[in-house]
Amino acid sequence: MASIRRKPLKVVTDSEDDQSDSRQRRDLHITKRVSTITEEKEEKKKKVYQGFSHTLPIHTLTKASVLSKEAPPENYSGFLRLGMLVLGASNIRLVIENWMKYGLLIGIPHSYIPLRDYGLFFLAWLCIPLSLGISLVVEYGMGKLAIHAKDAKADFLNKLTILERVVALTHVSHLVFLLTFPSYIAYTQIYHPVVGSGLIVICLVSFLKLTSFALVNNELRQGFVDGKVEEFYTTDVAYPNNVNAKNLLYFFFAPTLCYQPSYPRSPVFRKTFFMKRVGELITCLVMMYVLTEQYAKPTLANSIKALEEKNYVTIIERVLKLSTTAVVIWLLMFYALFHAFLNALSEVLRFGDRTFYLAWWNSGNLATYWRLWNRPVYLFFKRHVYIPAVQRGVPPAACQLLVFLISAILHEVLVGIPTHSITGFAFFGMLGQIPLIAITHPLEKWRGKGTALGNTIFWIVFCVVGQPTIALLYYYQWTANHKIVTAS
Amino acid sequence: MASIRRKPLKVVTDSEDDQSDSRQRRDLHITKRVSTITEEKEEKKKKVYQGFSHTLPIHTLTKASVLSKEAPPENYSGFLRLGMLVLGASNIRLVIENWMKYGLLIGIPHSYIPLRDYGLFFLAWLCIPLSLGISLVVEYGMGKLAIHAKDAKADFLNKLTILERVVALTHVSHLVFLLTFPSYIAYTQIYHPVVGSGLIVICLVSFLKLTSFALVNNELRQGFVDGKVEEFYTTDVAYPNNVNAKNLLYFFFAPTLCYQPSYPRSPVFRKTFFMKRVGELITCLVMMYVLTEQYAKPTLANSIKALEEKNYVTIIERVLKLSTTAVVIWLLMFYALFHAFLNALSEVLRFGDRTFYLAWWNSGNLATYWRLWNRPVYLFFKRHVYIPAVQRGVPPAACQLLVFLISAILHEVLVGIPTHSITGFAFFGMLGQIPLIAITHPLEKWRGKGTALGNTIFWIVFCVVGQPTIALLYYYQWTANHKIVTAS
Repeated sequence: MASIRRKPLKVVTDSEDDQSDSRQRRDLHITKRVSTITEEKEEKKKKVYQGFSHTLPIHTLTKASVLSKEAPPENYSGFLRLGMLVLGASNIRLVIENWMKYGLLIGIPHSYIPLRDYGLFFLAWLCIPLSLGISLVVEYGMGKLAIHAKDAKADFLNKLTILERVVALTHVSHLVFLLTFPSYIAYTQIYHPVVGSGLIVICLVSFLKLTSFALVNNELRQGFVDGKVEEFYTTDVAYPNNVNAKNLLYFFFAPTLCYQPSYPRSPVFRKTFFMKRVGELITCLVMMYVLTEQYAKPTLANSIKALEEKNYVTIIERVLKLSTTAVVIWLLMFYALFHAFLNALSEVLRFGDRTFYLAWWNSGNLATYWRLWNRPVYLFFKRHVYIPAVQRGVPPAACQLLVFLISAILHEVLVGIPTHSITGFAFFGMLGQIPLIAITHPLEKWRGKGTALGNTIFWIVFCVVGQPTIALLYYYQWTANHKIVTAS
Repeated sequence: MASIRRKPLKVVTDSEDDQSDSRQRRDLHITKRVSTITEEKEEKKKKVYQGFSHTLPIHTLTKASVLSKEAPPENYSGFLRLGMLVLGASNIRLVIENWMKYGLLIGIPHSYIPLRDYGLFFLAWLCIPLSLGISLVVEYGMGKLAIHAKDAKADFLNKLTILERVVALTHVSHLVFLLTFPSYIAYTQIYHPVVGSGLIVICLVSFLKLTSFALVNNELRQGFVDGKVEEFYTTDVAYPNNVNAKNLLYFFFAPTLCYQPSYPRSPVFRKTFFMKRVGELITCLVMMYVLTEQYAKPTLANSIKALEEKNYVTIIERVLKLSTTAVVIWLLMFYALFHAFLNALSEVLRFGDRTFYLAWWNSGNLATYWRLWNRPVYLFFKRHVYIPAVQRGVPPAACQLLVFLISAILHEVLVGIPTHSITGFAFFGMLGQIPLIAITHPLEKWRGKGTALGNTIFWIVFCVVGQPTIALLYYYQWTANHKIVTAS
């Protein structure tokens, strides 16, 4: 309304308004009681003409509607808030609908995990301490020899170089075993996917950690023998002092895949911080469990029939219904693992560098996302695959492809082996992103990083289409392999 | 990542980085090819120590996770975008679900409007031209008399004052008839609510317009006779010149309820602007029709059973399901009527003041909303009820209550009469807002106008709870009165 008084028509001239100031003061006790500025203005105008009230002009100048493009830009945040509310309301509705349809579906966790699985898990787990032991012994021994090598004859050095090959072979063999044996167990023996994936994850992590451990120590040793100055780390852990059980175990439990003789440390252990993270972790896990049992599973079960009948309309409907749940579960998983768990662990170990993830949710491109969401894995591949390859003169683009290929294989392993179905969905799901990145890359250039459009495409591809579709396909495989009776 | 280099640990000191500048220049051809700044930095760091690659430190300083409150504030717009996408996805899903369940429900419009309704509509419509005629004749006559009155004896003036009473009585009677007769027809004779509401709306609008016309001219006449200077309007329409058919008809069609002898006019008729608005109007109407037939009606029909059985869980579920549709229909209605239609009309009449609504969607309080969303009605009540009452010394709060009460009655009339069920739902729905406003008012004071919290409450009350609930209740009444067979 205020703007109406901007350039008044012949109707009410400002001069008249000014004359009326004295009157206005008298009427202040009225204007005071009147709520909005709008009405105050009207009041003032009114008081100019004693005795007139109905006659007062209401339409005083030419002005466009707020929504027409002639009008000055308006704030639409209210509509955004409405959108969020509708989202909330429709999800509460789905909760009620689900309740009315299924009642409570949640049973005692791991009620349907066969005891045998736990035994097999333990058996397969044993190759982790085994690999740890071998790594430590081998590296420790080589460390001792390296000390002798410093003041030795040429032929001893030759022996050492031969020995290096033996060491490399040892490492390769026990690391390969560390990957293959548990995978074999999980694929052929373990029934329950959760047990299987748990096993695969910890073995894969150990594999990456020990690979890093071997590579770094090998390089440090070379530098030590050649008397190359190495000024990365504090002298107390200068090679070979760093090769000892305590140091290795700290690295093994530390929330990183990249071995360093020393890490930045946080000053103190904050009990409250730790307790909070543990609390969050438990909450997230419970919520994930409930969502899976109560929402994801029924939707998945109902979609099997549609998949068998190739009823695409229903499939789309199912995927879309699944998407909301899938996204929420996925976000919970991210928070539980990358924020709550890794921070709690770091707090115990006083591990300083907590950048387990960066602000991936704004990424305008899948490549950016892969760089930001899982720092430990990203940094491992960057440090031990990408940079060394670039140094050896491989074109960076090729290195990026290589890294992408490896991570595609690892994704397939992580999903395919526990679900007993190496179908390549995950693998091609990853590779399929390369062309997409190629397409959206110019987009980023054009609008700048983290552009809204790119980010939207990212979310659509990743959370609305990608996630639930893959989940559906693997669930379908699983039921096909295990002849589960599907509810409908 | 950039921030990681802020205050480096003993691991890599800035001096070392500076020394490496020369080397960096050599490696530019590599760094160029590497996509992100992150990697550039890493590259630089790497090049400082020729011969080392795996050993390069990755964790170089103590840093909190992005999501922990120790970290600097981060931008979460990505999550907002995700929310919007999920909203979109879940609604597309509902469209598919609805299609699979009902197929196409849309028939030819007004297929089930009995022909009799149209006849009755026309009959009731006749009292509009009638009232228009009477108003014009009476006011024109009084205008002529007023001219004589200027140079007349006291007794003539007395006659005039008596005559004024007669005029007032005439106006009251034909205006009351204009409200009551069509209402009677709509309530007792017209079957279809759409025809009924159409009739009630145009009659109500005419009623308000002619009331304003009578009040303003009466006041102008007083001023004219008493020789009071009246400088609101251009002299060519100075009383009684303004009282003529052309002037009245312009006002009758003009998108306002407040009579003024003259209005601000837009310079030219913009054909394209007009065509666009008409196009929008048609589109909105079609969409509203589709939404009503395909989405609102089935949901309403399905909820009847729940209402009869007082199954509150289902009722809530229905209301929530209805809310989305109701909100969209309501927004379309708003846009169609207050933006598209009124702008198109204004364009034809070259009516200048297009503020038929202000940015109500940000209102932090229902009172603000009522002030902003429907300017024509708000301004009518302000000009012809609120301000005159305040001038006569009635406390503004009481006036506001009075206005609210009248509008509550009008809402009941608008909804209750066409649906043949004066249940008072709309009436008490309006009155119920007074306590709510009283509660949320301090909220506004506390957080400032248009506060997010207030706005959220507004949307919840108005669009998620209010709208669909009222709709459901009236639909229930309608079916109860007309024994419609309800689908389930």
